[in-house]
Amino acid sequence: MPPASSTTASTASVTAAFQDLLGVSAPSATPDDLKNTFYQRELPTTLVRFASPGGKKLFREAMDDGHAEGFFPLTGNFTTQSEPAYCGPSSLAMVLNALEVDPKRRWKGNWRWFSDEFLQCCSSKEDMKKNGITFDNFACLAKSHCDVQVNRAFDFTFEQFKKDVEMITSTSDKFMVISFSRKVLGQTGDGHFSPIGAYNSEEGKVLILDTARYKYPSYWCPIETLYESMKPVDKETGLPRGYFVLSYDAEHPPLSLCSVK
Amino acid sequence: MPPASSTTASTASVTAAFQDLLGVSAPSATPDDLKNTFYQRELPTTLVRFASPGGKKLFREAMDDGHAEGFFPLTGNFTTQSEPAYCGPSSLAMVLNALEVDPKRRWKGNWRWFSDEFLQCCSSKEDMKKNGITFDNFACLAKSHCDVQVNRAFDFTFEQFKKDVEMITSTSDKFMVISFSRKVLGQTGDGHFSPIGAYNSEEGKVLILDTARYKYPSYWCPIETLYESMKPVDKETGLPRGYFVLSYDAEHPPLSLCSVK
Repeated sequence: MPPASSTTASTASVTAAFQDLLGVSAPSATPDDLKNTFYQRELPTTLVRFASPGGKKLFREAMDDGHAEGFFPLTGNFTTQSEPAYCGPSSLAMVLNALEVDPKRRWKGNWRWFSDEFLQCCSSKEDMKKNGITFDNFACLAKSHCDVQVNRAFDFTFEQFKKDVEMITSTSDKFMVISFSRKVLGQTGDGHFSPIGAYNSEEGKVLILDTARYKYPSYWCPIETLYESMKPVDKETGLPRGYFVLSYDAEHPPLSLCSVK
Repeated sequence: MPPASSTTASTASVTAAFQDLLGVSAPSATPDDLKNTFYQRELPTTLVRFASPGGKKLFREAMDDGHAEGFFPLTGNFTTQSEPAYCGPSSLAMVLNALEVDPKRRWKGNWRWFSDEFLQCCSSKEDMKKNGITFDNFACLAKSHCDVQVNRAFDFTFEQFKKDVEMITSTSDKFMVISFSRKVLGQTGDGHFSPIGAYNSEEGKVLILDTARYKYPSYWCPIETLYESMKPVDKETGLPRGYFVLSYDAEHPPLSLCSVK
């Protein structure tokens, strides 16, 4: 058992991470106060902004190389997460819409559509708004709607991850959502989910379609850094994070096995 | 003054258009009833789906030709309108985020960000949710946040429109939002706003980043059809629609002249 001081430090660190996730740096900030509010964060220099000349060049090469196939359906469904802690449900809604899964439920008006607010499972809405969802919660939530291959960081090598990145970016009927630590990318905050949009194999860079668009724009990240970013232990679960490969077979839709409602 | 029967027909047609806009085809539909709900509409064959092989080819050519510059910041901020009638505010939020305008107001958590729900002017929230906004309302709302060039359909020729499409797609600091009649495109519904993402000059096709993504995906539309789609008279205003060119000068931010709050 760790000494009390270590526990306190750990708790403080978790709190700080969630404060940054939510964009809250001062507990005293009031809704009408613009002090301590942020218009985006500066992207670390190791990451290449998608909309920059360098980012466009990487994209053109990825397209030419056949590793931007999933980008088209994904970007057509790109979304800003509706709550600062909704990166998981938001990434999943994007992918389910890109997979053209009919949600069989009414969204607004008479339209059926996936939005992150409607995706819920294993934790209460209040808890999700405050703390987001864990790796296992994401797996459970995704399995209720599509086919999911779950890859926890201790279960795969760099070569396997790279192979899956190559595979999913060269097709438009399988998508990858990665659960990673922002810290390893040099970003503020910690645990985060986002879909993968494309891969530049020559430069070894992966396009992250970041759903926290109020914080960071889409960017290219070195694949080695992305691999490393799944390894740190998530303090909430005591386990590393990882990635998911999502697909959908309309003739054999998944059955939800989740017993928590 | 038209005869009563004509007025009735016109009113019925407006009502039908709004019913389709909202996805409501049966007034008796209840929230729990999935009858008469829709999972998207079929895209007319004259339009090319962005995520199809043909759509990707058109995009690659537009990129090579330098007419997809605005696509990158726009797609990174692509959004599904939060209400079935919010195509106007949603298109504007997309463009303001692409222009990197700091909204100077809190969104959620401590983040500053534009979302369509926050953009309001000239009409009540309830009215906007029900009927959307008109061409003039969009102009007024946009002018509160950025620089706007307003082009009503009787004010410009096809050549002028084409020149503006070429101009805005070859830069990433000016964007176009078009206010058009879906009917002319062969789509269901009527008045709609959407940003322009790219232009394929060889094929004469414009990429529409349709914000009603639960209804239609992004698509390429012949530029002549798009030009024609601005001409029909909007029954609500008695005037044709048109397009807007939006830009932002951070050193000289606009002053809102709207007197309606």
